[in-house]
Amino acid sequence: MEQNNLIIPRKLKGFWELMPKEQILFSSLLQKLEKVFQDNCFVPLDTPVLEYSDALLAKSGGETDKQVFRFEKGDADMCMRYDLTVPLARFVAMHKNELNFPFKRYQIGKVYRGERPQKGRFREFYQCDADIIGDGELSVVADAECVGLFNKCFKALDLDVEIRISNRKILAGFIESLNKTAKNANILIVLDKLDKISPQTAKAELQEIGLTDIECDKILNLAEKRGKIAEIVQNLRDFCSNTVFQTGLDELETLGGLLENFGCENAVCALNIIRGHDYYTGTVFEGFLSGTQIAVGGGGRFENLCSFFSKEKMPGVGMSVGITRLFDILMEQNYFDLTRTNEIDVAIANFDETLAESLKIATNLRENGVKADVFYECKSFKAKLKEANRRGIKFVLIVGEDEIQSQRFTLKDMENGTQEQLSLSEIVQKIKSTRM
Amino acid sequence: MEQNNLIIPRKLKGFWELMPKEQILFSSLLQKLEKVFQDNCFVPLDTPVLEYSDALLAKSGGETDKQVFRFEKGDADMCMRYDLTVPLARFVAMHKNELNFPFKRYQIGKVYRGERPQKGRFREFYQCDADIIGDGELSVVADAECVGLFNKCFKALDLDVEIRISNRKILAGFIESLNKTAKNANILIVLDKLDKISPQTAKAELQEIGLTDIECDKILNLAEKRGKIAEIVQNLRDFCSNTVFQTGLDELETLGGLLENFGCENAVCALNIIRGHDYYTGTVFEGFLSGTQIAVGGGGRFENLCSFFSKEKMPGVGMSVGITRLFDILMEQNYFDLTRTNEIDVAIANFDETLAESLKIATNLRENGVKADVFYECKSFKAKLKEANRRGIKFVLIVGEDEIQSQRFTLKDMENGTQEQLSLSEIVQKIKSTRM
Repeated sequence: MEQNNLIIPRKLKGFWELMPKEQILFSSLLQKLEKVFQDNCFVPLDTPVLEYSDALLAKSGGETDKQVFRFEKGDADMCMRYDLTVPLARFVAMHKNELNFPFKRYQIGKVYRGERPQKGRFREFYQCDADIIGDGELSVVADAECVGLFNKCFKALDLDVEIRISNRKILAGFIESLNKTAKNANILIVLDKLDKISPQTAKAELQEIGLTDIECDKILNLAEKRGKIAEIVQNLRDFCSNTVFQTGLDELETLGGLLENFGCENAVCALNIIRGHDYYTGTVFEGFLSGTQIAVGGGGRFENLCSFFSKEKMPGVGMSVGITRLFDILMEQNYFDLTRTNEIDVAIANFDETLAESLKIATNLRENGVKADVFYECKSFKAKLKEANRRGIKFVLIVGEDEIQSQRFTLKDMENGTQEQLSLSEIVQKIKSTRM
Repeated sequence: MEQNNLIIPRKLKGFWELMPKEQILFSSLLQKLEKVFQDNCFVPLDTPVLEYSDALLAKSGGETDKQVFRFEKGDADMCMRYDLTVPLARFVAMHKNELNFPFKRYQIGKVYRGERPQKGRFREFYQCDADIIGDGELSVVADAECVGLFNKCFKALDLDVEIRISNRKILAGFIESLNKTAKNANILIVLDKLDKISPQTAKAELQEIGLTDIECDKILNLAEKRGKIAEIVQNLRDFCSNTVFQTGLDELETLGGLLENFGCENAVCALNIIRGHDYYTGTVFEGFLSGTQIAVGGGGRFENLCSFFSKEKMPGVGMSVGITRLFDILMEQNYFDLTRTNEIDVAIANFDETLAESLKIATNLRENGVKADVFYECKSFKAKLKEANRRGIKFVLIVGEDEIQSQRFTLKDMENGTQEQLSLSEIVQKIKSTRM
């Protein structure tokens, strides 16, 4: 698109891009999550954005998925990753003999989906994943660690999130007891949307699948169970004698008992938590902003990470925070105070003859962890003050020749108008103390 | 590629991927660089990996560049970014009225080049860029800030780097004085490789371009100048009276005078620093690992960031650290002690009956900034000790029932074999004090 030989600058539709102040906030969220993962002994992984199409599309039998950005270059048929799990599987399968198990890795990275852009859905967005992969087997302690980690993520973000937990074996076992295992996926798809559709609609859909009136009521009753894990498990022991069902209860009970060891005390049992109809095989969990139906991520236990690459069984449990969507929601709810977000702590207002000294002071303050800037493009002292004010910078430091002589500088608080004469080390202390 | 219905897991050729310990180190370098940018009041930007092809390829007049990953999806013709500068230009052109100028932004991100994979060249690699963009004009103070920032990057990485600086106007002015401006690019291409070719070869190539014997000697003599900025400038004042040449000396002199204000005292003048034949128009600089010809990044002043998008002039100055290549070189030189890099500070060795308590202790230690892990997959106490040893974990904490009773635990230093009975808070202190 050209106009007078100029190109109109455009961003691709559906691609996310933040303005600087928002990006400062978003980057700080990513940093907090990364710290949580590191503090919990997860190692970072940073796989390429591109993968061979045969590996990336193994799940779909190699067929081109319309939602994938796929192209050829030279003799390579490649795709942009649509999640971080398939690359993890590829990596683990390639390097199994060099890794420590259980392999605890995190990855924070962008993924790509060519879906139609719409509110809350992006073609490029961040995933923050952490997974624990076992070699052959993996105890339910890993499930508890993973839920605990998920919980810590939201604590680090200072967000009130309710974690709802289930175990897929409970519903699977009950469906098996009804001799409806062949319809398992169809039934789960209905139950997965119980928060969005009415019980009547759900029942009608289940009947269509072939469940009797009584079976519908029983399974809907089961899926509606919510409460403390230990209580739900106790109440359900006699609900169904199916072995898979009982194993699900056992696993859920063990998980529930372990959670407090990981500092997670705000998890509830909710048997309608399903997390899609395939992939997960045991524990499943999902986080919701407290008092809402706004999902902010989740995860669960899977039987075999590397099934497309290897015959060796590698069970795992993972969690994912939907940080892009979460950030959008938080922005909408004015969760962040953008006026308190500034890349500059203090603006130095100097005169022509004190420029060099002001630059030195800025360098000194920066080395001491105070973000000081000199507005060297503003022509006059007055223009510098005006610019600091316009940009909402909390402090201005006045550096004239007298101040340099005495090494005491005027620090003006632009929010309340007060000012003080301070030494540089006092300035550092003062500014750091006013931070949240 | 299938084998017994399994897909052989492969990474795309030429794509970089690190093993966990290396990735821990690499991530820590990125974090250090990010902190430098933030401490110096640069705002983060995180543009999409994909851009419209017309914007991304504007420089090359819209022609497909073979080195670019380009594809179509729906009605969009798009490319993966090959640098972070064109996306910056696109962003600034789109949002000019919402940004603060000078616009100081950093971006750390992967870029993509479809070149033939070879040693030191990757198809996906990180760029760490910081730029200062002016609106209409930008003083040479920005050049000094940018060189100073570049210097701080290497200080933060604890690397000894020599920064070599020139100003493109000096050579351009001299070439103009020879009436060879039409051959400017060809001449610069020769001078740009002076570190790699002999003076004889350089001279032969310059003669081929059309320079006389005397002109060759003079320009080679000029390009070989190296030393303190002030001295070189003084020596060259009478070398050539051309206005552009003298302006170059003026700018270089001003820059040299400003550098110490930004804490940069290790810069030298080297007139063979060119940084490619186009784009840069004034200050140019490049960093080399001390005592070597190993370049680790550089940058310079450009006339107009947004020339393809807008008629308004937006001069800028930027710097870039070639962090992927640098990391590779540091790995080759055994700069990092991989045996000292561990995601775990302390392994907790428990007995079956103390698992819950051990998990609680791990949670407590992690909350206090100590990376503690419980090897819940190891069946016996002995297996846990063995695993901690195999993984090179410095400390093991023994948690038996007696220890829980007394709340004093045995902390064993696996490196020197000593052990002590300590409370949890003493353990936190001890482990933190042994870190580098």
